[in-house]
Amino acid sequence: MTDSLPNDQISCPLPLPHQQVIVMGHGSGGKMTHDLIKKTFYKALGNPILLSKDDAANIGITEGCKLAVSIDSHVVFPLFFPGGDIGRLAVCGTVNDVSMLGAVPMYLTAGFILEEGLEVSILEKVLASMRVAAQEAGVYIVAGDTKVVQKGKADGLYISTCGIGKIPPGIEISGLCAQPGDVVILSGTIGDHGIAVLEARNELGFTSGIKSDVAPLNHLVEAILSTGSTIHVLRDPTRGGLATTLNEIASQSQVCITLNESSIPVTSEVMAVCELLGYDPLYVANEGKIIVILPEQFACDVFTKMQNTPYGERSAIIGRVIDAPKGRVLMKTSLGTTRIVDMLSGEMLPRIC
Amino acid sequence: MTDSLPNDQISCPLPLPHQQVIVMGHGSGGKMTHDLIKKTFYKALGNPILLSKDDAANIGITEGCKLAVSIDSHVVFPLFFPGGDIGRLAVCGTVNDVSMLGAVPMYLTAGFILEEGLEVSILEKVLASMRVAAQEAGVYIVAGDTKVVQKGKADGLYISTCGIGKIPPGIEISGLCAQPGDVVILSGTIGDHGIAVLEARNELGFTSGIKSDVAPLNHLVEAILSTGSTIHVLRDPTRGGLATTLNEIASQSQVCITLNESSIPVTSEVMAVCELLGYDPLYVANEGKIIVILPEQFACDVFTKMQNTPYGERSAIIGRVIDAPKGRVLMKTSLGTTRIVDMLSGEMLPRIC
Repeated sequence: MTDSLPNDQISCPLPLPHQQVIVMGHGSGGKMTHDLIKKTFYKALGNPILLSKDDAANIGITEGCKLAVSIDSHVVFPLFFPGGDIGRLAVCGTVNDVSMLGAVPMYLTAGFILEEGLEVSILEKVLASMRVAAQEAGVYIVAGDTKVVQKGKADGLYISTCGIGKIPPGIEISGLCAQPGDVVILSGTIGDHGIAVLEARNELGFTSGIKSDVAPLNHLVEAILSTGSTIHVLRDPTRGGLATTLNEIASQSQVCITLNESSIPVTSEVMAVCELLGYDPLYVANEGKIIVILPEQFACDVFTKMQNTPYGERSAIIGRVIDAPKGRVLMKTSLGTTRIVDMLSGEMLPRIC
Repeated sequence: MTDSLPNDQISCPLPLPHQQVIVMGHGSGGKMTHDLIKKTFYKALGNPILLSKDDAANIGITEGCKLAVSIDSHVVFPLFFPGGDIGRLAVCGTVNDVSMLGAVPMYLTAGFILEEGLEVSILEKVLASMRVAAQEAGVYIVAGDTKVVQKGKADGLYISTCGIGKIPPGIEISGLCAQPGDVVILSGTIGDHGIAVLEARNELGFTSGIKSDVAPLNHLVEAILSTGSTIHVLRDPTRGGLATTLNEIASQSQVCITLNESSIPVTSEVMAVCELLGYDPLYVANEGKIIVILPEQFACDVFTKMQNTPYGERSAIIGRVIDAPKGRVLMKTSLGTTRIVDMLSGEMLPRIC
């Protein structure tokens, strides 16, 4: 199109051959941005709503309902790790947050911050991973945005995803709803994501074989709700780990949560790495696990259903909700003593998601 | 709380006195994250939905309707500029994108990426600015997320905002809808935002007195729609400027848009700076302007209404839609010649929003 450029238009450096890397011009909002979006983003994520190319996506809600809305900015380092990458994480993290209100996630929007010099092939790999994760979850990415910052002002790329889901009638699930007498179920082993990311950073010094558990959990939530059971709380124990998330719930609901140490599933590989490095798996991030808190009468049905559903096979009943001390999480250790499990304080594993 | 920390919990550096700066621990998901959110984010942006503290916000849609959804990542440099800052920009940019489908913006979600070492007082200033802008627009920030990256992996802070609005029944506004015979109205002067940001970067070498036009345009859109006129296209000419946005519309609708150079409002200050630096104001970003494209019969009503509404006082009829050459924008210059106005190619002003 060079021959049709008016003389007064600002000239600019062209991208490197074959558009191999991101340059500042890709963030201009002009032709280069449009080319990148068309050739890279639309190719990977295109669907009729996204392709309408308006400033906002037009989505229909067929009847009056409650919606669950959530946003997450993803800055995981490195971008690729055993079992996943930032793209899968960005889709699953937001799908899961929306699902934790019992909602059926429907639409995602995604904002990308790209660092100048990023290889386009890396972006394409991340987008392909987003597409696969979105397909698995059954959600559409309906709107997006791309910005470029100078080299040294980001770390490859960051992705912010916002999710919208529909809360079925009659569902009232919240961290506020845990009640004394409730049972606490965990959908599988803890610590896998955090340790997999550490390994990708070469911080282990050896190969553990541990993979991130990053997965969309909406179908597992659907399975849980399909039992017709009353569910009080659903929450995914991500950053800060199981300990921090349970503390959040105990505080929100003003109850005490008691855990049995021996019931909490941890693989021997994760346990070995944690012992070696001095980590407590209770504080290590997960990206494919749910905590379910529900009345005892429904626990057996839900537990069985979870064990027979993908991503829930290693579910375990890990504790109980009691009245007091309010806002506390207590753990009966395998030695028979009881200790306070506090919220993570400060930094443990930065940029884990 | 130090006395209640279990022995096996990872110790971490405490924040600097009075939590003056952001440290990596603020991104841990643990106590420090919670403290930051409570003392800084909730204080500035708190509302009942945000304060529910669940993984997602629960919003109600009272009847079946269409929703407009949009996301934008904001990386403007510097964070503060004459007339605005990244906080006001993050709210207005997304409010405006949602409004451009004719929707009434209702809810925002915001994801923050903070650079280690950022002064908390800067974050507080940005959040206060978001609160003011959200109040002016009449929207609620219902969900948020905060991540921290190491020094040198961001540039102070980045904000991704996703907006949700309700499209009133009967409204069908899209970049696809421009038709030959339509009139093109612009809501005011162009180039102010881009030049204000340049000045904040000390790139002018002098003080121009130009302020960014960053503003929420939803009330102006409401005023336009209140005339009962048929509106074909609404679009805000941000990154890439008026020229790029009109090219997008011409391409989407497969029409030609013709402009009269002498009708396009530009302040003498912006014109002087552009002439000095070799910029064309047609390509300089705006953050508080709308392009309205509508059938001629409604143009007078809408134009008058716009001139009598805040943020629309300097509205002008700048051109027409004709049939061909399709996908092109042409401009009749003040010399009487006609030239092609192409889309911005490559980089002109990086990190302008």
